[in-house]
Amino acid sequence: MTELDTILLHVDATLDASLERLFDFIRIPSVSTEPQYAHDCRRAAEWLATEMTELGLDASVRNTAGHPMVVGHGTAMPGPHVLFYGHYDVQPVDPLNLWTHPPFEPKLVPQPDGETHILGRGASDDKGQLLTFIEACRAWKSVTGTLPIQISMLFEGEEEAGSPSLAPFLDAHGDELRADMMLVCDTDMWDHDTPAITTMWRGFVSEEFEITCGDRDLHSGMFGSAARNAAQVMGTIIGKLRSDDGAVSIPGFYDGITELPEAMRAQWAALPFDAEKFLADVGLTAPAGETGRSVLEQVWARPTCEINGVWSGYTGDGFKTVIPARASAKLSFRLVAGQDPDRIRALFRAYVESLLPPDCSVTFKAYAAAAAQAMPLDGTLLGKARQALTDEWERPAALAGTGGSIPILGAFKQRLGMDSLLVGFARFDNRIHSPNEKYDLSSFHKGIRSWVRILAAFSETTP
Amino acid sequence: MTELDTILLHVDATLDASLERLFDFIRIPSVSTEPQYAHDCRRAAEWLATEMTELGLDASVRNTAGHPMVVGHGTAMPGPHVLFYGHYDVQPVDPLNLWTHPPFEPKLVPQPDGETHILGRGASDDKGQLLTFIEACRAWKSVTGTLPIQISMLFEGEEEAGSPSLAPFLDAHGDELRADMMLVCDTDMWDHDTPAITTMWRGFVSEEFEITCGDRDLHSGMFGSAARNAAQVMGTIIGKLRSDDGAVSIPGFYDGITELPEAMRAQWAALPFDAEKFLADVGLTAPAGETGRSVLEQVWARPTCEINGVWSGYTGDGFKTVIPARASAKLSFRLVAGQDPDRIRALFRAYVESLLPPDCSVTFKAYAAAAAQAMPLDGTLLGKARQALTDEWERPAALAGTGGSIPILGAFKQRLGMDSLLVGFARFDNRIHSPNEKYDLSSFHKGIRSWVRILAAFSETTP
Repeated sequence: MTELDTILLHVDATLDASLERLFDFIRIPSVSTEPQYAHDCRRAAEWLATEMTELGLDASVRNTAGHPMVVGHGTAMPGPHVLFYGHYDVQPVDPLNLWTHPPFEPKLVPQPDGETHILGRGASDDKGQLLTFIEACRAWKSVTGTLPIQISMLFEGEEEAGSPSLAPFLDAHGDELRADMMLVCDTDMWDHDTPAITTMWRGFVSEEFEITCGDRDLHSGMFGSAARNAAQVMGTIIGKLRSDDGAVSIPGFYDGITELPEAMRAQWAALPFDAEKFLADVGLTAPAGETGRSVLEQVWARPTCEINGVWSGYTGDGFKTVIPARASAKLSFRLVAGQDPDRIRALFRAYVESLLPPDCSVTFKAYAAAAAQAMPLDGTLLGKARQALTDEWERPAALAGTGGSIPILGAFKQRLGMDSLLVGFARFDNRIHSPNEKYDLSSFHKGIRSWVRILAAFSETTP
Repeated sequence: MTELDTILLHVDATLDASLERLFDFIRIPSVSTEPQYAHDCRRAAEWLATEMTELGLDASVRNTAGHPMVVGHGTAMPGPHVLFYGHYDVQPVDPLNLWTHPPFEPKLVPQPDGETHILGRGASDDKGQLLTFIEACRAWKSVTGTLPIQISMLFEGEEEAGSPSLAPFLDAHGDELRADMMLVCDTDMWDHDTPAITTMWRGFVSEEFEITCGDRDLHSGMFGSAARNAAQVMGTIIGKLRSDDGAVSIPGFYDGITELPEAMRAQWAALPFDAEKFLADVGLTAPAGETGRSVLEQVWARPTCEINGVWSGYTGDGFKTVIPARASAKLSFRLVAGQDPDRIRALFRAYVESLLPPDCSVTFKAYAAAAAQAMPLDGTLLGKARQALTDEWERPAALAGTGGSIPILGAFKQRLGMDSLLVGFARFDNRIHSPNEKYDLSSFHKGIRSWVRILAAFSETTP
């Protein structure tokens, strides 16, 4: 029996103890956005520090302007040095009446299909997920007396609150935290049976703007047709942001974007993904993105511009014959690698200004921005991790994208120069952020085993 | 001295008594939209019936589902039979604290320029204006013992509430009310010194519509670019309602419209109207209507399409990365003679449906509609009235248009086949519908004299 087999057997044999620790962790109601749970957030941080100390890490709870960070460092070892990131805070639980069981009293609930659900707030996001890594480390430590590579860990308690303390903390402690690779366990499997590594995610630029024509609302009888109508101008501008073929019409918007590598395109085409069903589930039949691109390309690999809100004039009951002097919209861009968020914002603003008819002015308000990221696909650690996942789940691990944005990882990339490897065992039906959040017992168990394998594979690597 | 001169002198000599009657009328707080004034509305109706009886009319107060109508008929006479229309109800007075004097305690306030203001709610709209006609009739009756032509009168008490009882009343009493011409005194002079007859007003079609894409709001990360965005679709449709040259883009929209007669165009061009100032007063510099049309043409003689309100998605503080599934707008058309409101509504709806991308549907909600009207410019009565006004004010009376809509007169045209002659003595600064409403004493005095002259001119006419 190999060392790896021994460790995996140990994981199986001690699963109940692992589960007991997860239950203890879930019982701490570490809701970051509600002040009355501040003490519980600190308790969760201290609980993690204790667990890390048991693994042999030099661990400490670090104060911030908000909830504390937990940092721990393992002994220097040959092979790559990884920094595992996770978050101990959870989403609020309201509406509480929709929970079938108290959210902070975790419970196992067997399912008709043989699966078992671990019920509780944070069971999946991110307590259950992050514990798969800690329990994998514990198994290594129990069987071999040590961790297989140099491992640092960083846990924050404000992920569900927009991570306000993270960037300052990275700026202050960059040298301490820098490692060869970030590991994160906060994402989904591809489907129930197929593991996945998320290798690219889109960037983000959000913006609000207001068009003003004239200095007051006017009566459409007295002024109709002669006076500039801000709602009309807004509509015309919105109509010129994307063309009929779905492409964004802002000059220069696509500059710097490279096409998807052929290998990736082929892998995506081979993924079990039903584009028709993806759209049909939300009442749609025809993809609205760029003509000639697959739906997966549209949402993962192509940038877009979306109107998130628009308002102007009279919007109440009945009717008012007003020519609105003002019109506002909120919109956001999803970006891909090669697009600089600041440049996209500037291009958008210049484009809007170029479209303004006489007597109109525009003011812009900047909201958040984050760059897109794409993992280098030829990296050794990525290849090792993918093989380890494939071994555990007995099907090829998917290299997936996501259309969403992960600003936290942008902070690590920008401030510490670190790439991130995103391996997660959540399933799409975990109801994270909703009542009755659950984590499948198989996610937890095979998640621990997956990390045991990944660490084994990494330990055979020279950084 | 001619009979006309005698009557005009009588008007001058009895002006104080005329004013006293106006004061009595203003003192009745006949606010039609506030239930606590229902009794006062009836009092105002009865007050009018008494005045009409004094003129020799067979007058009565007629109940309706709302506030009563007052109807009176004079003796049959040679010459044209006219029906004078006005309204005894007034606008609410709030905010009361902005009035410098109690609104239902009329008062004369001399002005530095020699003018005197008659202060009070309804002093202009429409009590002062309608009384110019009644007092002109009184002068005729006092001096000659009779009215010069056959005169009927109809006063309603719901004009400020949308005239809900008018159309049913016309339908029920059409034969009784039908005359050769409607006379109305509820409009403005061209400017302080220039009288005006309003000969054309625009029609109206108002509509609300909602675009739906898919069956729920979506996350712009997960679906952005592939999912149809209702706010984007709405913007694109709004952007296609009018072209860059200001024209409405709906196919067939301009069918049936005739060009302005050259004589009218020449008269308008000669009017003292400063288009630059008209726009500058509201912060604009460039007319937004059809290229090559004057501003007066744009607002009086050309139809338009105006967005009155639009809303979709997230419009609160902060940001939400939603792809809205629904977007709504309210819009209205101003129409000109030759455009059928029902046909325009149908053309609009068909056009929107033709612009819908896949997966989108639209629902429409109809609001009010009214046809445009234009007085035949070669009518004898119009020519007589214009000359009479010119004689009184010693400058050529303007034949003006208005960009607004007057649905009441459409009801008379449609139901009784009657054209309307709109002669008014209000001035643009009368603050109707606002605190401190006033009517100039010169409007009242010369208004009475103007009607005396118009009636004299009409009495020389064969219908």
